[in-house]
This record gives sequence, C-alpha cells and structure tokens, in this order.
Amino acid sequence: MSDSATSERVSHTELAGAVRALAMDAVEAAKSGHPGLPMGAADVATVLFTKFLKYDAADPFWPDRDRFVLSAGHGSMLLYALLYLSGLEGMTVDELKRFRQLDSRTPGHPEHFMTPGVETTTGPLGQGLATAVGMAMAERMLAAEYGDGISSHFTYVLASDGDLMEGISQEAIALAGHLKLNRLVVLFDDNGISIDGPLALADSVDQPKRFEAAGWRAERIDGHDPAAIAAAIERAQASDRPSLIACRTTIGFGAPKKAGTSKAHGEPLGAEELAGAKAAIGWNAAPFEVPEHVLSAWREAGRRGAAERKAWTDRVEALDPASKAEFARRMHRRLPDGLAQAVAELKDGLVAAPQEIATRKASEIALGAITKVMPELILGSADLTPSNNTRVNNPTALAPGSFAGRYIHYGIREHAMAAAMNGMAIHGGYRPAGATFLVFSDYARPAIRIAALGGIPAVYVFTHDSIGLGEDGPTHQPVEHLAALRAMPNLRVFRPADAVETAECWQLALERTDGPTLLALTRQNVPPVRRAASGANLCSQGAYELAPAAGEAHATIFASGSEVSVALEAREILSGKGVAARVVSVPSLELFLAQPEDRKRHLIGAAPVKVAVEAAVRFGWDAVIGPDGIFVGMSGFGASAPYKDLYRHFGITAEGVAKRVLRTHNL
Amino acid sequence: MSDSATSERVSHTELAGAVRALAMDAVEAAKSGHPGLPMGAADVATVLFTKFLKYDAADPFWPDRDRFVLSAGHGSMLLYALLYLSGLEGMTVDELKRFRQLDSRTPGHPEHFMTPGVETTTGPLGQGLATAVGMAMAERMLAAEYGDGISSHFTYVLASDGDLMEGISQEAIALAGHLKLNRLVVLFDDNGISIDGPLALADSVDQPKRFEAAGWRAERIDGHDPAAIAAAIERAQASDRPSLIACRTTIGFGAPKKAGTSKAHGEPLGAEELAGAKAAIGWNAAPFEVPEHVLSAWREAGRRGAAERKAWTDRVEALDPASKAEFARRMHRRLPDGLAQAVAELKDGLVAAPQEIATRKASEIALGAITKVMPELILGSADLTPSNNTRVNNPTALAPGSFAGRYIHYGIREHAMAAAMNGMAIHGGYRPAGATFLVFSDYARPAIRIAALGGIPAVYVFTHDSIGLGEDGPTHQPVEHLAALRAMPNLRVFRPADAVETAECWQLALERTDGPTLLALTRQNVPPVRRAASGANLCSQGAYELAPAAGEAHATIFASGSEVSVALEAREILSGKGVAARVVSVPSLELFLAQPEDRKRHLIGAAPVKVAVEAAVRFGWDAVIGPDGIFVGMSGFGASAPYKDLYRHFGITAEGVAKRVLRTHNL
Repeated sequence: MSDSATSERVSHTELAGAVRALAMDAVEAAKSGHPGLPMGAADVATVLFTKFLKYDAADPFWPDRDRFVLSAGHGSMLLYALLYLSGLEGMTVDELKRFRQLDSRTPGHPEHFMTPGVETTTGPLGQGLATAVGMAMAERMLAAEYGDGISSHFTYVLASDGDLMEGISQEAIALAGHLKLNRLVVLFDDNGISIDGPLALADSVDQPKRFEAAGWRAERIDGHDPAAIAAAIERAQASDRPSLIACRTTIGFGAPKKAGTSKAHGEPLGAEELAGAKAAIGWNAAPFEVPEHVLSAWREAGRRGAAERKAWTDRVEALDPASKAEFARRMHRRLPDGLAQAVAELKDGLVAAPQEIATRKASEIALGAITKVMPELILGSADLTPSNNTRVNNPTALAPGSFAGRYIHYGIREHAMAAAMNGMAIHGGYRPAGATFLVFSDYARPAIRIAALGGIPAVYVFTHDSIGLGEDGPTHQPVEHLAALRAMPNLRVFRPADAVETAECWQLALERTDGPTLLALTRQNVPPVRRAASGANLCSQGAYELAPAAGEAHATIFASGSEVSVALEAREILSGKGVAARVVSVPSLELFLAQPEDRKRHLIGAAPVKVAVEAAVRFGWDAVIGPDGIFVGMSGFGASAPYKDLYRHFGITAEGVAKRVLRTHNL
Repeated sequence: MSDSATSERVSHTELAGAVRALAMDAVEAAKSGHPGLPMGAADVATVLFTKFLKYDAADPFWPDRDRFVLSAGHGSMLLYALLYLSGLEGMTVDELKRFRQLDSRTPGHPEHFMTPGVETTTGPLGQGLATAVGMAMAERMLAAEYGDGISSHFTYVLASDGDLMEGISQEAIALAGHLKLNRLVVLFDDNGISIDGPLALADSVDQPKRFEAAGWRAERIDGHDPAAIAAAIERAQASDRPSLIACRTTIGFGAPKKAGTSKAHGEPLGAEELAGAKAAIGWNAAPFEVPEHVLSAWREAGRRGAAERKAWTDRVEALDPASKAEFARRMHRRLPDGLAQAVAELKDGLVAAPQEIATRKASEIALGAITKVMPELILGSADLTPSNNTRVNNPTALAPGSFAGRYIHYGIREHAMAAAMNGMAIHGGYRPAGATFLVFSDYARPAIRIAALGGIPAVYVFTHDSIGLGEDGPTHQPVEHLAALRAMPNLRVFRPADAVETAECWQLALERTDGPTLLALTRQNVPPVRRAASGANLCSQGAYELAPAAGEAHATIFASGSEVSVALEAREILSGKGVAARVVSVPSLELFLAQPEDRKRHLIGAAPVKVAVEAAVRFGWDAVIGPDGIFVGMSGFGASAPYKDLYRHFGITAEGVAKRVLRTHNL
C-alpha cells in the first residue's frame, strides 16, 4: 500500500461512487448489461486501483505493471469505469456511452484485443482466473531469468462465485498453490447471489477452506469496508503463498429493491431503482458525469505508477546490451534469428537419413533443434510427458517456489494448462507449448477458444491423433476432433505426415504470432513421405502436390498425417492397374481452404475422381472433394484393438482406397 | 458389511491375489495396458466386492444393485477381473485373454455398452466420478417417488489422483456435497504416482480437506489393510454426507522394482517383474488360472445379493398395479402414451395462433405440455434458468437431502451437469434434460461425448445459439459450435426454426433412446414459418421443403433455425425480381446427411444455384451445397452489439442472400 494524496481530499465513498454511477448509467443507456457486480465490487476495486495497483495509465502496456484480471467478465463496466477514471487514453466517456455497441472499446465482455488496459478476454467463467495463473507464472519465470528488478509485479483477479464453481478453477488453484505463486491475489466477490437466485440453491462450498486445501492463504472480509480491504491486500502481498480474499459484498449495492437479489445481476436497474441507488450512495451528478474533484483524484491515482515505471525503464536500459536486446526481442514476440536455419538443417538431415518414426517422435526431434535457439519456448504436458515426447534437451521443471525451470508439469489439468498458456503468452516473454492427447482437446476447448478469439500464439502438441493409438479404444481415439477444431475460427490445425512435415509445421506454428496452432501427431510410426530436399516450407499453404500422376490423372487422392503414406501406396497399386492418380498432402485443411480461389482450384485439379483419406470423420472434407467425392475414413467411433487391426477393420488401407477408385474407373 | 462365509475359508490375500494375478496376466498377454492400478487397488476392491457390494452376478441389470464405477478407467483389468471372479455370465477367462482385442468384452477402457457389469464408460478422467453423482441422485429421487423399498442402494466410485485433478471433479463433488448424497462413497486410490513421476511434481492438494470444504465426510486409511478398509466403508455407509476414503496404496503392489513408481502405470510388467510380483503376493497358479477354492469363494461372493434381489423383486411385485406398470415403463425407457398426442395438440394450437417468439420460449411452451405427460423428464440448468426457459409448471427443485423435486439447479457447472445427466439416464428411471448457452457446450463437451459414445439419451437445451444473442459479444456467441457438435458421431443436433419445429424436435429428442440430442435455440424472437397444419413430424428426416419455387427453381436456399425466416424473405425478394427459389428448412444437418442417397438428392434438387444460410461458419455445409455453393453466414467470431446490428454487419439478411443469388442469375 503506497501512500497517496488521493484519500486526503476525496472520500473513498466518492471514488467508489463514481465507479458505481458510471456502471449504472452505461448499462441503462445500453439497455442491457450487468450492473450488479460493478455496484457490489466497487469498494474492493477502488481500494485496489487507488492504493495498490502498480499501474500507469500513460502506458497500459508497461511490461512490469501489476495485472488486474476481471475474471467475472460480465461485470465489464466495472473495468471500463476504472480505466476511464484512471485516465487511460482512448477510454473516453463517449466510449462508456457506447457500451455494448458495435466497434466500441466497451464490448459486452472485456476483449484484450479491442481495449488497451484489458489484460485478457473474459466472460466464459473461470477463464480469467486460470489465465491469471499463467501470468503469475510468467512474472516469476522472467524474474528468475532477469532478476526482480525487471520482473516484480502482482497479478490480481476479481472472481465471482461462477468463476469458482467452474471446474477449471480447481485445476488453476491447484496449480497455483502447488507452485506457490505468492504474487497472485484472488479477490472473490462473495455476494451469495447467482442467476437462478440465492447461491445456496446450488452451492455450499466453503471456499476459503477449499483454497487452503490447495495450498493458498485465505481469509474472509467485509467487502464494503475499505480499511479491511486494504489490510487484507497488505497481508496477501506479504504472503509466501497465493492468497484468496473472500470479500462479502452486496450485489447491486445501494439499489433500494434489487440490491442483494438476482434481479440486480443481468439487466438494467430501471429509472426508479437507478435513482434510488444513486441517492443511497450520495451521488448527485448527472448521468455519465463525474465531479471534477473526484475525477481529478482518480486521474492522479491512475498515474501512481509513473515513477516506478521510470525506474523500471532505467533498469532495463542498464542491462548489458545482449540481455537488453534479448529481453526486447522476447517481449515483442520476435523470432530468434536461428529458427529458420535450425529447421532447414533439420530437414536436410531428415531427407538424407529418412526414418520411419511416429510424428510425436519427429516433434521431439524438431524440438531438440528448436529449443536450442528459442529459449522463450516453454514446453509442458498435462501429465503425459513420456507419451507426448515434449521434454527435450533435459530441462529443469518448474517446482514450488522455484521458477528457473524450462518445463512445466501441468498435472492432469488440460483446461488449466491451456488457460495458463494463454496467460503466459499474453503476459509476454514466453511462447508456451503444451501437450496432451488429441482427444482431450475437448477438456481444454474453452481455453483454446479464448486463444483463437484473442489472437494468442499458443501451441498445442496433441499426440495420439487417431485410431492409430490402438488398444486404448474409443474413449481415447479422436474421430471428430480434427473437424471440431478446424471449425474454430483463427485456430490453425496441422496434421503432419512425416518427420519433414512435422519440422515444417513446428516452424509455421512458431512463426505465427497472431493466433494459436495445434499439431496433431501420431502415436504410431509412419513411413517418411518427403524424400526430396526442399528449401521451401511446403506446408505453408496448407496443402501441396506430393506425388504427381504418371500421365493424365484419373484420381486425386487427398490425405493428411498418417494417411498420406496410405494414399501413396494406393497410388502405387492403381499405377499397377494402369490408373493414374496423384497425391496431395493436406497438413492443414482449413489453411488450404483459406488460399485464393485460383490456387485452390489449381491444386484440386481436374481429375474426375476426388478421394480424401483421413482416419477421422468426413465432416469438412466435402469442401475439397465435393458431395460426390470418395471419403475413406471413419463414420463413427473407434474401437479397442492393436492399431493395424483397426485400420483393417475400418477399411482405411491402400487396398481399400484403390478398390474404391477402381470401381469408378471400371464404370 | 454383511457376514459372509467367504472369509472363513479363503484369506483376503488370496482373494485379492486373484485380482492382481489376472490383471498382470491379461496386460502381459495384450502386450499393453495398465497393471499398476489393479495391483494397487486390489485390496480395496476385494473388500468392497466380497463384503459390501449389493450385487448378484446372475443379474447385472437388477435396478437396485449397488453401483461400482471405476472412474480410473485405465485400470479396466481390475473391473474385468472382479466381474470374472464374481461369476458374471459372458465374462470368461477367454475374454480376459482377449483383453484389448477387437470385439472382446474386455476393451482397453470399460464400455458399458459392450460389457454387462460395467456401469458406465470411463477412461477420460473425472467422468466416472461425475457420472456416479448422477447415479446417486437418481437413486434418491426414485426413493422419494417409490420409497426406500424400491430404491435403496449405494454408489461406489474408485477414483485416481487424475480423476481428482480434472476440473470436472470439483463441479461434481460440490454438487454431491451440496445435495448431501450420503449414499455416494468415493474410494480414492491414493498412490502418489502419476505418469510424469511422483504426484508431487505437479500436485500438493490436501484432498480430504478439499472434500470436507465441499460438504463431504473424509478420512485417510491404509489401502492395503482389509480391516481398515472395511471399517471405513462402514463409517461411510452410516454418514449423513457423501464420503471420501483416501486409501493410501502402492501402485504395482508387489512388483519388485516397479512397485511405487510410474513404470508400473501403463505398460506390461515384463516377465521378470511379473514373476517377482506373483512371488511377493504368494501366487503360484499358472497364468490366468485361479485355484478352485479361491474361485469358488469369489463366486459365492458374487451371489451375495441374491436374497436381497429376490426380496426387492417381491416388493416391486407388491406395488399397486399402476405404480408397478409406471415403474417398469420408466426403467425400460418406454415413452408415455400421451406424448405424441400432446405434441400434436400443441402443434395444432401453434398453427392456429402463430406467435413471433424466441425458440427458447417455444421450448418452454413445448415443455409445458410434455412435462404433464412425462414425469420422468428431469429439467435443470447450469444457473441460467430464466434465460434457458427450462423451469416450467413450477416444479420443486432438488435441495440438500431432499429429492422429491423435479428441477435441478446444477450451479455454474456445465461439465458436471452433462455428466450427472449421463448418470441419471444410465441409472434408469429418468430422462434428464439440462440447459446452458450453446457456446458453453465446449465446457461440457467431454461428457457429451460420453453420452454419444455410450448411446445415452440425454437432451441438451442450449439456448442463445448465434450472434442473435447480441450484446454479450463473441465470447458468448457460438459460431463454430454447430459444426463442432454435428461432427460428433451419434449426437443429434437440432436447430428448429420456429415454435412448431421446436415442438417437433422435442418430440424427436424424447423418442430417441439410443443417444443424445441437442436443441439449439434462439434468444431472439423469430417469425413463425410453419403456417400449415401437419400431422407428420417434418423434422424427422433432418430437412424438408418448406416453400416450393413458383415455377422452375433457379435456386434452392437451405437454412436452419433463425435463418429460415431470412431464407423465406429472400425467396420473396427474388420472386419480386422474377427469380424462382425454393426454401428447404434443415433443422438437423447431420440427420439429413444420413438419409438414403436418393432422398437426399431429391430434396437437394436440380436448381443450378445452391445457397445455405446459417449464422455460423460454413464448415460442413459443403456436403449439401458443394464447394461452389453460396454460403451466407459467419467467417469468423462475432461482436458485441444489438443483434439486428450484427445481422446487418455480417450481411446475414434477406437482401444479402437475394443479392448473392441475383448475381448468379445475371451472369
């Protein structure tokens, strides 16, 4: 708690009143929104922003600022009011008046890609809390590398009961407690109300006890008592563990009839309640107006971190030139010079000495080269390290209170892994890549969506990508997951066919800085299909002709991943029968579909028969082969058996493909 | 704990040894699998099965049997060994020898649809535990309806640390603790080992304390001490709350070098370790052989419930005839006679007095009629009751210790909701329908997949199904979800266009008993499109011609849900320009694609221009309109604004559709 002149001139009630009034006014003007949370949590947020948060509104991207994550994103007007009051450039009163309107900086839920000062996109409950865990990890990891002078900030989260009911919260708090992330502070807006009514209709968890069980410090306070709030934050800052402060608040604080009820949650108060609430908090200004002395005190608070920012900038300037350049490179997500060269050398080696290996193993080999030149790449796995092949070059792992490591044992927590990756990537300084089985992408999907929506360059290393995993059976065999992931906007899905394609896909994943990339990798060995050296990255347009037809093509066979070798073998069989076929490798279906129309048409070609081969469902492939195209793949769930038995059982074989094509030829 | 002659003649060590030996042998024969858990948990499982479990191997489907759910499904050989030893028909030693082979009853993970005696499909961690919560709910709900004489069993779960690390476990234990499901007992196989190594690499949660915080009774015991196990189960049975028994065990118990390490987890022991382990537990029989006195003691234990089953059958017989018939109808998932009639009357009324309402409201109206004739339909919401419109006819809600209700406040726990629904449906007696926003299907997806894989007739009432929800913005607007869900085998997705289609889709959802159905419903009002009475259920083949062309069709416009009225309006505009177009309503794309080829071709028709209109991504629609078809919809994420602004912004309007079609006409 740093001293501030603020409290001398303007009362806490006035400062918090400004937040409450703006939130009420904006929701009323928008005719929709959530007034209850901003009104209830205004005291907590005001104390945090005016007395604790290390923040300078002049530069909302200052790397060592404290992070404030509004996990309860529906209360977005709380955040917008705070940013406006703090004096953030661009967050004008006009933007508040355009709350929830097209192209405003004040969308219904906070979007970090639209609004400076918003640390991460929130709204889907639990995501903010789990993302903040990743931010707090990155902060300590940077400190381990560059010292506390360069990285030394807190991460604060305002969470609702909804955030804490979502399962992801347990994964996140267990990870944070285990790692002893003592600069993480969760302020729980404990208002006892959910949409269905009193929280007691559905929940009776003792949250402080639950957090203690996960290794946190926890306490309960009155969330409307500024002194209690400040004292609790001071205790949290001094803790050697992450802290939960359960702040008992009244939702819709001040509203005569709706306060303390679910009616205050998600709709405008209406004129009468609004007037009553303003009277109750002693607020007399006109809608959207803030009295000069209050605004000026807020603006002063918004620059409280200016001196600290200056001092930090000086410390960065004082770094040795190499460290300084490297720090800047990483914070700006610029690739290291050596990456392209490392991949090129690797590809040459793979072509010179082809290996029949699983693409998960090929990924390990690629990472062996890449991690040497890219120290910001932070690998990890949701407790499948030996299966995902992600631990390369023998790195130290993060451990409780120890952040010098370069590997993360996320535990069996796919969802928190993906969210923490979002947090590390947004925080800056790291490029996270996390692993599990492809089928468990379902467990992480809401956080993957945040990455796609928010343009976050996370990399998912998802192995065991089809029935090719064999005996573990249908619960573990993805069949619909490739389609489900390809359908997600701005997520790039690669399914490389061999070691060379795997190296190319890793390069593309890391070169991408405006969104997430998923690598779907095999458990089983696959033959090398890329036998010729290529300086160009052939995967970069999503598809390419791997094997031309001998003569005019009767068929084009499209395939991805482990089925590319099946397609090549089918081409051989057909060739033996006098039928010419070409093979197009499609490492990324959606990237291919996004190519210019003429390029697509050229590659699809004019062969009368179009075939797609993939050990997954057909859904999505009609965009290439058309409704009349032949699809060789799965039409339902898999089964438990050795994988070669399964490929035969489901007819995904070179003979099967050739037979289907021959049938069209004989007609 | 019922007395048994078993323990007199055969030692616990021998009984448990049989489980351990069979598990080791089967994994070794399969050359893959997980020996560690069966070896470690054999003592706990043996005590439970031989002394407590109310079970009669002669009828594994006896409704009032105790349920045993192996949440840690990778340890499947534990369960198969128990079923074989108990004498379950069909679970022969040959099946054990075919462990993890095609079409055996012993797949890699337990599948309830393949193996009698397996209560639910498990493997994806956390699912078993959360499904068991639903079973325990159904048990008490049936007791509230029919009395403890008809429904009075325990639900036991064997869970691993992986189950407890997954976020879904928190949602599930919070729900169970809140409801005081005191007949739920979780046996935690606390072996301190995960795949990456010691659990301490990634986790330090105090599990008993965490469960206590969620309202459970919890204790720790030595999981290799049969007396301690038995005493703890007795205490759990007597508790007024659900119980966690953390059983400290050694993974791979007995293996000389691998016991207590991650090497025992997921691969065969190898000949040497296997021999050493058998020596350590004093097991001398040949592979897959069980000494006669041990097998006979196990077989006796497997019939321990025979007398109780007989008594239960007598009590059912003694019910009054109406209750008895109703109980049988519900346990066999037979529909009530009145359903079709109720829907028919509803449709007639809707056609007679068309209303411009949201389909979520139409769903509420349909449920108003349906719930009156279908008492087994259990509605609920993940804390979005007023938005999902699922609480109809003013039912009582379940409450702590009180199970006579007909509505469930699941809390903000979409994942546990979907899993608990699986449990209720598998248990029998109920048809669960649970609600949230469509975008949050991602949070529930792993449990939805269990329903699809396991053929479980759950119904998902997912509202706010597109950008039509408006101001809440892209985090809340599904764009890829319809595609992602349609891609899942055996899940049926309906997106009805108006109140009549909504009634028809509800009927189809409830008539389906071999898999789950999802209803995607609008937040915003939509005009009625079904103006003519129809006795037939026009949605039953996934698509139908709603409006023919006036003359030879230049274009066919396919649309679903809220965009069907857009298509109709476009048809009017085109008609005004002298261009004939027909409109096909597609309430279920994948159901339509599954129709016989000639029916599909007939409905798609010969119009040169094919258009699809849906406020979602194109992915999947090429199967109908082809790669050259026109798609009017979304190509990326949505935005925050009033919904009419969004439809205009993204060009999903009748004018936009007409313009695209006219362009083809002028060429």
